Amino acid sequence: MPVKPDILKVTATAKSRLFQVEEIELRFSNGVERTYERLATRGRGAVMIAAIDEQENVLLIKEYAVGLEDYLLTLPKGLIDPGEDAIEAANRELKEEAGFGAERLEVIKQMTSAPNYMGHKITSVLARGLYPCRLEGDEPEEMEVMRWPLSQLDKLFQREDFSEARAIAALYMIRDKLKQE
Amino acid sequence: MPVKPDILKVTATAKSRLFQVEEIELRFSNGVERTYERLATRGRGAVMIAAIDEQENVLLIKEYAVGLEDYLLTLPKGLIDPGEDAIEAANRELKEEAGFGAERLEVIKQMTSAPNYMGHKITSVLARGLYPCRLEGDEPEEMEVMRWPLSQLDKLFQREDFSEARAIAALYMIRDKLKQE
Repeated sequence: MPVKPDILKVTATAKSRLFQVEEIELRFSNGVERTYERLATRGRGAVMIAAIDEQENVLLIKEYAVGLEDYLLTLPKGLIDPGEDAIEAANRELKEEAGFGAERLEVIKQMTSAPNYMGHKITSVLARGLYPCRLEGDEPEEMEVMRWPLSQLDKLFQREDFSEARAIAALYMIRDKLKQE
Repeated sequence: MPVKPDILKVTATAKSRLFQVEEIELRFSNGVERTYERLATRGRGAVMIAAIDEQENVLLIKEYAVGLEDYLLTLPKGLIDPGEDAIEAANRELKEEAGFGAERLEVIKQMTSAPNYMGHKITSVLARGLYPCRLEGDEPEEMEVMRWPLSQLDKLFQREDFSEARAIAALYMIRDKLKQE
């Protein structure tokens, strides 16, 4: 691997309730200096859950995404709470957002979103052995749950209201994994 | 689709050179009110390019990602400049970051990254008919370019230094598309 740049200075430049912006001064190994901005990373990361039923359907939720000001189809997801690991967080979020618990959960991959601008990580989790179980979460409204056949991912990804790269990546990885089992 | 929440108020709460944070007050159709924060969306979006050579290898770049403070393997990508469309931006970024132009480019899908927190969109582009051509970009150092067989994506995604969800999603979509051609 190349030699990493030296970090010369990190300065907090803006702060809101949720976000904190840092300016970071770097010197690359060739001597070039650059100043970048990034979002500071706080918390324990997030999980995204692909819950697969006995008929090889995946559970999707319809959720309002304030960044797009629209409802989107996506996978259940959420932040890892203090004291939880990724598996525990995944089972809790699945119960809160989709109304199901899972008997078998396994980590698929830790993914990054926009690593040039933030360090945020999300762990995709495969959940199987589903049973009805609803936990009260902090959602402002109940989410509509839809089942979609894993064999028809191409049709799902053609939909304009299914656009989240992390969900597309997670579903393909899981489809490939299940084919190999 | 469900009835969208009413947007009661949008307030700018923090601003840096690159980022602007907004607080947004909503009333959902069930009457529940919530206040969220999101990053304001500026600019024309971004492109991510999967350039495939005659042997069905994809061109990867090794790039320093300041959000993770490490080098990552990923696809060439960048912001769409004023006056460009996604295809033009893709061909320019490919020349700047990988040193290749493409005779045939096509849009695969417009993807979102973290739509609960930002409206940013990135368009994945398939590039074929590659020829050597380097444009000077704003990169602080020359990027190492690596060719990876499309038939071995599973091995690529097992690597810890290949983690970007948007790149995983783009490569799977393109592999599926090429299989069907």
